Amino acid sequence: MAEALVIFTPSGKRGRVPVGTPVLTAARQLGVDLDSVCGGRGICSKCQVTPGVGEFAKHGVIVALDALSPWNPVEQRYKDKRGMIDGRRLGCQARIMGDIVIDVPPESQLHRQVVRKAASARPIEMDPATRLFYVEVAQPDMHEPSGDLERLAAALREQWQIEALTAGPHVLRKLQRALRKGDWGVSVAIYRDHTGGPSRLLDIWPGLHEGGLYGLAIDLGSTTIAAHLTDLTDGRVVAAGGIMNPQIRFGEDLMSRVSYAMMNPGGDVEMTAAVRQALNDLARSVAAEAGIDPALIMETVVVCNPVMHHLFLGIDPVELGQAPFALATSSALALPTRDLDLAALNPEARLYTLPCIAGHVGADAAAVALSEAPHLSDDLVLIVDVGTNAEILLGNRERVLACSSPTGPAFEGAQISSGQRAAPGAIERLEIDPATKEPRFKVIGCELWSDDPGFAEATEKLGVTGICGSGIIEAVAEMRMAGIVDAAGLIGGPEQTGTARCQPEGRTHAYLIHDVTDRGGPRISVTQGDIRAIQLAKSALYAGARLLMDELGVERVDRVVLAGAFGAHISAKHAMVLGMIPDCPLEKVTSAGNAAGTGARLALCNIAARAGIEREVGRIHKVETAIEPRFQEHFVNASALPHAVDPFPELAKVVTLPSVIHNTAGTEGGGRRRRAR
Amino acid sequence: MAEALVIFTPSGKRGRVPVGTPVLTAARQLGVDLDSVCGGRGICSKCQVTPGVGEFAKHGVIVALDALSPWNPVEQRYKDKRGMIDGRRLGCQARIMGDIVIDVPPESQLHRQVVRKAASARPIEMDPATRLFYVEVAQPDMHEPSGDLERLAAALREQWQIEALTAGPHVLRKLQRALRKGDWGVSVAIYRDHTGGPSRLLDIWPGLHEGGLYGLAIDLGSTTIAAHLTDLTDGRVVAAGGIMNPQIRFGEDLMSRVSYAMMNPGGDVEMTAAVRQALNDLARSVAAEAGIDPALIMETVVVCNPVMHHLFLGIDPVELGQAPFALATSSALALPTRDLDLAALNPEARLYTLPCIAGHVGADAAAVALSEAPHLSDDLVLIVDVGTNAEILLGNRERVLACSSPTGPAFEGAQISSGQRAAPGAIERLEIDPATKEPRFKVIGCELWSDDPGFAEATEKLGVTGICGSGIIEAVAEMRMAGIVDAAGLIGGPEQTGTARCQPEGRTHAYLIHDVTDRGGPRISVTQGDIRAIQLAKSALYAGARLLMDELGVERVDRVVLAGAFGAHISAKHAMVLGMIPDCPLEKVTSAGNAAGTGARLALCNIAARAGIEREVGRIHKVETAIEPRFQEHFVNASALPHAVDPFPELAKVVTLPSVIHNTAGTEGGGRRRRAR
Repeated sequence: MAEALVIFTPSGKRGRVPVGTPVLTAARQLGVDLDSVCGGRGICSKCQVTPGVGEFAKHGVIVALDALSPWNPVEQRYKDKRGMIDGRRLGCQARIMGDIVIDVPPESQLHRQVVRKAASARPIEMDPATRLFYVEVAQPDMHEPSGDLERLAAALREQWQIEALTAGPHVLRKLQRALRKGDWGVSVAIYRDHTGGPSRLLDIWPGLHEGGLYGLAIDLGSTTIAAHLTDLTDGRVVAAGGIMNPQIRFGEDLMSRVSYAMMNPGGDVEMTAAVRQALNDLARSVAAEAGIDPALIMETVVVCNPVMHHLFLGIDPVELGQAPFALATSSALALPTRDLDLAALNPEARLYTLPCIAGHVGADAAAVALSEAPHLSDDLVLIVDVGTNAEILLGNRERVLACSSPTGPAFEGAQISSGQRAAPGAIERLEIDPATKEPRFKVIGCELWSDDPGFAEATEKLGVTGICGSGIIEAVAEMRMAGIVDAAGLIGGPEQTGTARCQPEGRTHAYLIHDVTDRGGPRISVTQGDIRAIQLAKSALYAGARLLMDELGVERVDRVVLAGAFGAHISAKHAMVLGMIPDCPLEKVTSAGNAAGTGARLALCNIAARAGIEREVGRIHKVETAIEPRFQEHFVNASALPHAVDPFPELAKVVTLPSVIHNTAGTEGGGRRRRAR
Repeated sequence: MAEALVIFTPSGKRGRVPVGTPVLTAARQLGVDLDSVCGGRGICSKCQVTPGVGEFAKHGVIVALDALSPWNPVEQRYKDKRGMIDGRRLGCQARIMGDIVIDVPPESQLHRQVVRKAASARPIEMDPATRLFYVEVAQPDMHEPSGDLERLAAALREQWQIEALTAGPHVLRKLQRALRKGDWGVSVAIYRDHTGGPSRLLDIWPGLHEGGLYGLAIDLGSTTIAAHLTDLTDGRVVAAGGIMNPQIRFGEDLMSRVSYAMMNPGGDVEMTAAVRQALNDLARSVAAEAGIDPALIMETVVVCNPVMHHLFLGIDPVELGQAPFALATSSALALPTRDLDLAALNPEARLYTLPCIAGHVGADAAAVALSEAPHLSDDLVLIVDVGTNAEILLGNRERVLACSSPTGPAFEGAQISSGQRAAPGAIERLEIDPATKEPRFKVIGCELWSDDPGFAEATEKLGVTGICGSGIIEAVAEMRMAGIVDAAGLIGGPEQTGTARCQPEGRTHAYLIHDVTDRGGPRISVTQGDIRAIQLAKSALYAGARLLMDELGVERVDRVVLAGAFGAHISAKHAMVLGMIPDCPLEKVTSAGNAAGTGARLALCNIAARAGIEREVGRIHKVETAIEPRFQEHFVNASALPHAVDPFPELAKVVTLPSVIHNTAGTEGGGRRRRAR
């Protein structure tokens, strides 16, 4: 039999196949990653390829014009109906007639990669649990009676090597109609995860289903809930959205929600219902934004802290509020979403939650570990996910440690006098001129700085409404660098600071940033209370990081990754000025964006990622901050604002909190020490 | 180390164990079936044994008085608290000190056998999917954080070799409290079925759970629903109950329900909701009768015909109403009951449905096959399950055939002028004196015959209300034997029959059985219409059986088993007179009672039975009556009432239905033939 040489790019895989072999068949034989939903029936067009013509010196082959069989009616019909890039062929229709080089474009690769925004990030390789298959099913035969499901299972086994099919009651109901309407040709959504359990039939459509399959990656925070609606075929985020966690009305922070559950019988049930309702609302809203039916959402991956994890699953969180902080379950969970009242999704949709690391270090921290992969890092990396609680990971290939630190909501703009969440109108950047002590700032929703011409007009509708988390960090750091605040965190009066913006407020002072009270607007300032709130938050964060460093016996880290939706907006310089994080060269501080959300997307798009993080979480060493005396010690020692020339040393004597130089001291006893400068 | 000889009865297993070995340990080492829920902690008392003392010639051993360690405080405490038969010991407490013979009483055997009522029936060996285990769980350790579920799973692995534990959201919610309330000693209900899937945690209780675990075997018929609440430990039926199928309001028979679904959009959903509601009601009522919490029902096995199967599962039954009668699914199903809205049961309870054999031969027929095991029979057995549809099985070790026959509801007393369902006051037995043509009868709820002294008084409250299924069969057969009805099924007038009980009714005659209209009571008679209804029903039944015999190429069967709740009450003689069943020696006709219900109980109590019937159903050859021309032929040929001297041959000429002798003819063409007698 005549044979031809076929070379696939970009993989470089090559081999000889009999003349007349379809490109798709050749690709499968050679292990080339070429997608197909219909199994080569010329229906789905997923197997498009670009044949090369001419001389390929690199491959040592000259490709003739007739190296592929001629363009055929199936291809023409598809091109007429849907359009197809010139030069492309359908891999299932074009047959190899002579030596050839065939390129598989990225969108035709089954395991295509999703490029992540952050330059340092590894791409996501698509290998989701839920995939679409087109299958042709035998018609019923009265003389050899068998069920529709059994004939579908046989067809899937034969045509797609899918074994052990199971189906829940909601899809069983749709089976008969879909099979008959599709004239025994149907598309099925099949779920197969990393556990080796049975293949699940999630949904069925007559003929070729072209509506897509979607997954929802959810970062379920104490304060906000973020969702990324993801196309399960190519990993594209087709819509993203966020809402406030409605549990806020039961308590701002996690411990007040635990208290609410403790004090109010049925309180946990109320909170569970509230968060599930919010997830349904969010799913419907992102689906509407993407213009898809929410019933096409076949899977959701939820990452969250342990308290949210329990409240979402309907488990009383009270045990998490007291030592020994025992989780009801720490394993990754795979459940039907209908058991969690997520009625907005497909009725057979599946939920996956990442494993929790410990009673205070949840699935969100696991998701950060999955996204940032400290266990694959050669250098020692500190990863802090800043939210109402900070999740902290420290490690490298050798060993990874984790802890959680109760930073409170100050970093999110809560418990700050002019604070607000990151929304249009909120001050997110701020600079103070060290000479004049005058501030300039930017608000979310406007590209201009406040001293740029046209700022007032540009923000007229928006307003300047308050300070968000990143704004307050910059404000405090800038106040410190401008000498408005001393190392102990005390705001000087007008006579010490030389600016009338520092005015008495009660027994202390406040620094005025923006005052439009004359136009009925707000008066935005940083009060002494705000400084104290930020000091407490950053001390907690620093103490947690420091505790892990002690545990590892190191005095410095090679690099720092700031994660969290908020971490994306923190200026590394200002974080360092505040002493939020241990000292590290500035260029070694990077932002990972919403790493927990990215981890959720990873788990959604790739089942090997689920298996991987389940394995890694078992190897992460957990440090419990709540009972560790050194955490308190670090916490107390870390409240100072170190990085500035102390502008009014005489005042420092009256403050009650000791100061410290981060990169040397901190573990040498718990007593008060002055900064050794 | 000193050893002692230990012999267990009744198993006869024997071996030598080190002196000091607890009896339970010795039993396990020797593979003796000795129960224990607590794993030898002296809590559950399931391991009670009776040690022998004296000489055991049969075993060649003399047992000394001190062959077991002395009675100990644990045993005394149990005896004081719960009582224990004198001479019994706890197997986990008593240690073997010398040669001994130890008897394991039936109630201490884990795989104890449940004796079934019918003498011929195989006993049920207990091996249910759901079992209770007592387990001691490690307390949480803040420094080695792990979830409660994970520690429970580890304890089950270690103490009971139970692997791969999964838990649904409803039991996850109960975990923490049970573990702490039980001081880390809990009882768990674990479900492990025959499919090799994960072990499921269904429920958890602090300490030793003594409330029992229950299962519900449900025979879901078109007309009635019967439930047997079964103790999953010992197989005892602790309560039984039945209710009418509320779907009757949508259609008396299956095809009218299919029509209802076809004609009314959402009609199938209505019917599904109705039957699920009925199952919940029934579960609550049998639980109440047994005095148990319905949440202790951990499993239910449902057997039913294909239409009920689909309607219960929420699948549109329309496909079952037309060729090729394709089932949506024919496999056995294992589902969470909450997916079927069976809220009365434990929220984590599991449902098992037996496989369906074909579009007209359902899980009820599979259950009959499981109970009566034709595939294990040496002789050729015909099994008919008589209901609104008759399921018919014919076969032996070599081969088993099955079909379904549309007998209609006449055998259940429906569509009969004085018919009623089997309830107190219904005539269930009837005899007619061939000389006087006078009837005597018995009604359900009274032991006296109607001509016994005191019958009127005894039935004064009860009343004589109508004729049930078995009553109408006896009535028609007796009328035939007494010469009131001829072979063609025609009722003679008073002049032909010589009794004034035969009176004109329209253009035909009716035979009066009981008339208390003068006291405001009913007038009970058998009309010509009733005879026709019974003729149609019995012809369908006979034709189905005959069709299977043709398929197997046989002219007679070795034995006949009448199944169905109703089958239990049919007199074999009268059935044969009517020609309901092929000829067979009378002593070879037995009743299996509610064989479908028994099959459900078997599947509930023994997982190997589930695996077995799933395998067997695949081997049963299905014959579709609806499209088989020979079925129509047999049906037409089978309407005569053969077994009597024809009393008024002159009348026979006018009847339209031909007659036939069952054991010879029937397949020889479809023309009219006279009985060759």
